Amino acid sequence: MPAESADVVQSFARGIAVIRAFDAEHSELTLSDVAQRAGISRAAAGRLLHTLETLGYVRAHERRFALTPRVLELGYSYLSGLTLPAIAQPHLEALSRELDESSSLAILDDADIVYIARVPTRRIMSVTITIGTRFPAWATSLGRVLLAALPADDRGALLDAVDRRPLTPDTVTERAALEAELDRVASAGWALVDGELDEGVRSIAAPVRDARGLVVAAVNVSTARRGDPQLAADRIVPVLLRATAAIDADMALR
Amino acid sequence: MPAESADVVQSFARGIAVIRAFDAEHSELTLSDVAQRAGISRAAAGRLLHTLETLGYVRAHERRFALTPRVLELGYSYLSGLTLPAIAQPHLEALSRELDESSSLAILDDADIVYIARVPTRRIMSVTITIGTRFPAWATSLGRVLLAALPADDRGALLDAVDRRPLTPDTVTERAALEAELDRVASAGWALVDGELDEGVRSIAAPVRDARGLVVAAVNVSTARRGDPQLAADRIVPVLLRATAAIDADMALR
Repeated sequence: MPAESADVVQSFARGIAVIRAFDAEHSELTLSDVAQRAGISRAAAGRLLHTLETLGYVRAHERRFALTPRVLELGYSYLSGLTLPAIAQPHLEALSRELDESSSLAILDDADIVYIARVPTRRIMSVTITIGTRFPAWATSLGRVLLAALPADDRGALLDAVDRRPLTPDTVTERAALEAELDRVASAGWALVDGELDEGVRSIAAPVRDARGLVVAAVNVSTARRGDPQLAADRIVPVLLRATAAIDADMALR
Repeated sequence: MPAESADVVQSFARGIAVIRAFDAEHSELTLSDVAQRAGISRAAAGRLLHTLETLGYVRAHERRFALTPRVLELGYSYLSGLTLPAIAQPHLEALSRELDESSSLAILDDADIVYIARVPTRRIMSVTITIGTRFPAWATSLGRVLLAALPADDRGALLDAVDRRPLTPDTVTERAALEAELDRVASAGWALVDGELDEGVRSIAAPVRDARGLVVAAVNVSTARRGDPQLAADRIVPVLLRATAAIDADMALR
């Protein structure tokens, strides 16, 4: 690749790094902050911030920079191209209304789940979940449903590659126990995770399939962690499976 | 600015244009499609797609390209830096549950509203609304609340600048009528829009204020367009204003 092309590629990667320099704890940054967090020179940071400002993605105020809502358009370029969230949304709404609990739709991206649709009813998670939120797949009911559908080799390689640090005192982290649970999930057609991601949360998930029958996403219902998990499963699983069957049917119609 | 810097800036802008080339009707594109839609050469499109693929934002399959869920991280860089959605979310959930209707939080970005939090209950809009969805402010209840809070000059300039094409047979488009309605909204403290954005939808919105009392966002409740609008307002406005007052109080505590 000629040097000119390499520059183009590098400058684009650096521009993305400038956007990613902003997060929950760093919503306003100085030029120096941006340079440091993106790992680039002040001069490069200055040029890229100016470009982002020209494009309307950054606002400057008293030598501090912040992202603008226009940045959401980039994610929207992705979301609007997906047919699944639009198909699933009314079914998530019905599911959520019938059980009076939050429900979500997520897909697998490498070793993470990513939320692509959500109907929240009341806050039970300690963090706010929104479209684009990521969690490690192995520790979530949505993720276990998606991992259970992978070929055994891919699933094994993924479990080997990820950092299986416990997220609560109840997180199952042993490789063999997780493999056994994924086998159980594959056979049962749903997963229940009780306080493994967040101590106060119980979540039950089931797969969504495309017209060819391949698992492409998962839907969950999350509730406060109260009472017997088996009774919660008895109440939630039949309603959840009706919702995913309805989504599958709508997917097959397309 | 030296030529090298101009290149850097241009290549970044082109990379963003490549991401924006994908949308609902164009979720999979060939190299030629991307070049054409982004207005760049095939060679430039090829380099940028390769960069995006290396960064994990694009996947290629059989000579067709698609965005990956990682693109959502860019929008998430913005969203996670906002305190307001996290503060508002439980209040939107309570509002939505009390009225059994959808509620949303939006901010003004130029002449558009942008959704930054949402609790959907059932589908009434003909399009799917998600975080990042934009609508022209002047034709929405959320937007009218936000426009009503602008200084008169800014508000006037904005109404002059935008394309006030009717979106339904009921859209109010006359400049004088809109100005009068914005005055009414400023004085009443809430806005009702009946079938002006979408024929079947009625929406009622009220402002959210920061600790200094400045309007920074708006919350709405949207319902199917049935029955007398005044009766709907009588039912919804008191509950809505209680929710926005609670959000204001939480904002002031920070």
